[in-house]
Amino acid sequence: MMSHDQLLDLLRRHPNQYVSGAMMSEELNVSRTAVWKQIRKLEGAGYEIEASTRLGYRLVYSPDAISSEELTEARSSQRFGQSVHYYEQVKSTQDAARELAEAGAPEGTLVLAEEQTGGRGRMGRGWVSPQGKGIWMSMVMRPHVPIHCAPQLTLLTAVALCRSLRRLTVLPIGIKWPNDLLIHGKKISGILLESAAEDERLKYIVAGVGISVNLSERDYPEELLTKATSLRIEAGGAFSRSAIVKDFLAEWETLYDLFLQEGFSAIAALWESLSVSIGQKVRLITPQGELEGVPVGLEESGAIRVERADGSIVTIFSAEMGEPLSRS
Amino acid sequence: MMSHDQLLDLLRRHPNQYVSGAMMSEELNVSRTAVWKQIRKLEGAGYEIEASTRLGYRLVYSPDAISSEELTEARSSQRFGQSVHYYEQVKSTQDAARELAEAGAPEGTLVLAEEQTGGRGRMGRGWVSPQGKGIWMSMVMRPHVPIHCAPQLTLLTAVALCRSLRRLTVLPIGIKWPNDLLIHGKKISGILLESAAEDERLKYIVAGVGISVNLSERDYPEELLTKATSLRIEAGGAFSRSAIVKDFLAEWETLYDLFLQEGFSAIAALWESLSVSIGQKVRLITPQGELEGVPVGLEESGAIRVERADGSIVTIFSAEMGEPLSRS
Repeated sequence: MMSHDQLLDLLRRHPNQYVSGAMMSEELNVSRTAVWKQIRKLEGAGYEIEASTRLGYRLVYSPDAISSEELTEARSSQRFGQSVHYYEQVKSTQDAARELAEAGAPEGTLVLAEEQTGGRGRMGRGWVSPQGKGIWMSMVMRPHVPIHCAPQLTLLTAVALCRSLRRLTVLPIGIKWPNDLLIHGKKISGILLESAAEDERLKYIVAGVGISVNLSERDYPEELLTKATSLRIEAGGAFSRSAIVKDFLAEWETLYDLFLQEGFSAIAALWESLSVSIGQKVRLITPQGELEGVPVGLEESGAIRVERADGSIVTIFSAEMGEPLSRS
Repeated sequence: MMSHDQLLDLLRRHPNQYVSGAMMSEELNVSRTAVWKQIRKLEGAGYEIEASTRLGYRLVYSPDAISSEELTEARSSQRFGQSVHYYEQVKSTQDAARELAEAGAPEGTLVLAEEQTGGRGRMGRGWVSPQGKGIWMSMVMRPHVPIHCAPQLTLLTAVALCRSLRRLTVLPIGIKWPNDLLIHGKKISGILLESAAEDERLKYIVAGVGISVNLSERDYPEELLTKATSLRIEAGGAFSRSAIVKDFLAEWETLYDLFLQEGFSAIAALWESLSVSIGQKVRLITPQGELEGVPVGLEESGAIRVERADGSIVTIFSAEMGEPLSRS
């Protein structure tokens, strides 16, 4: 029997070169069908292998590891990610973190998974989260703030992620209201904050963050390719997922502490400076109906002020924001 | 073997009179110990039986029934309580309703129990909820409003319950901020709204309402008697629990529809007119620390405006409010 590792070693000894199926079959002493089967397994584990009937196989991308040990090393002073629950595969990091929160897990408890089989986005939508290529994480937060601050924490999380990813990738990443991160209009991350409250007090928040780090175009269903992208697709090279998680957690905690001490104003200013929504005419679908207008700024509450064609300003607390419209 | 019913029949044939143990033992053809055991069973089921070593036993109170059929009769036009899940005994109606909400139960789904074995109040505190004497209920709400409206719905629920109970009992019931109902400073009901939200959108609310309808002083631990009372203790007579549930659900739905159509202003005005907190100097324990002051009115957000000794006004979103202080 040939193992994953032998095949991988062989491919790695020929960086950026094709290795013919015949050569692999001979060197590993297995059938060409067995080679093909192992190739498929490696692909399932996050490796990308280019196959050419004429030339053979070429290793294009190896997933990096996010290990719990690596992440918890030397972070005694930091609360976010202090305790990491790491899964090779999980239905949804959000559901796992919620169970931990219900059981009393402290603030900063982090759930990370290499792969989600039932990843969730906003409003019950699915979320593409294949193995070894993205960051799929959920964290327990326990801010002692009233319930109306929850939307502010959604915006804060988007600001922290945007600042961290801009610093590490130098890509032109912007925030679409309230919390999608876009590059050239395509989504590279999703944020979902699920809050549990008793009367006017927040009990806990489970903050889910999905980042499409090293996904290739082949990882997306075709109909998503006009709307979604990854850092790797945009930058033309892969990034270390561990490095991103570490940097983001530190940035997130810094802004969170600033928010708890000083309130939302500074965060709102950062959000506005990073937003691609401000000043662009859009259609908004609210529970009360649709409207068109130009977002002009954030309210202290986290709601967005939208200027309509007649010059009136409406305050929108909750809506789905569409693509930018051409200015009429 | 003697049944509950035979003993109960015997007591009922002697309204407001003592029946001697000897006579009961003879008439039912059982031992006096067997009589005593059945008396204890009846007490466990919500009956109150006065025992005198000299005179015997006297039936003081029989619990009324809350049946699901009774509640659902002829309510085709009403959403609140449209579907009733009725339990003889349940750990917590709140937990049962939350499970229903998570599974997609529609707005107005009601959980009612004759007895809670683990009733919950605010901040994880217990709640005295013995069999057959109170109304222990939780309802699923699915308002299409942003998350910051959740505290408004807490206040709305208190207004609806206060209006309904005042109408049915003519007792001087007032609201202590945010949502406790008091008679002469003692608590007669508790309200707990647990909200689940995704980002800035409410997913559902489970509204728990506990009403101490027909509890006697013997139903409370002694240390609670200075703080808690029941409608029966205050009025000197029992009330029909079914009638209260029906009237309250109708009032609650009426105010809820008003809120969805017209916003919070009218509800806030009703709350202020029923409140015993306005104008009384109190100590407030907030997550940021303690303060003293006189509540002067509600904010549109549901927060309360408190005037301090130096004349400054602070807005309090979340606090535990203490007993009224003597004016200094």
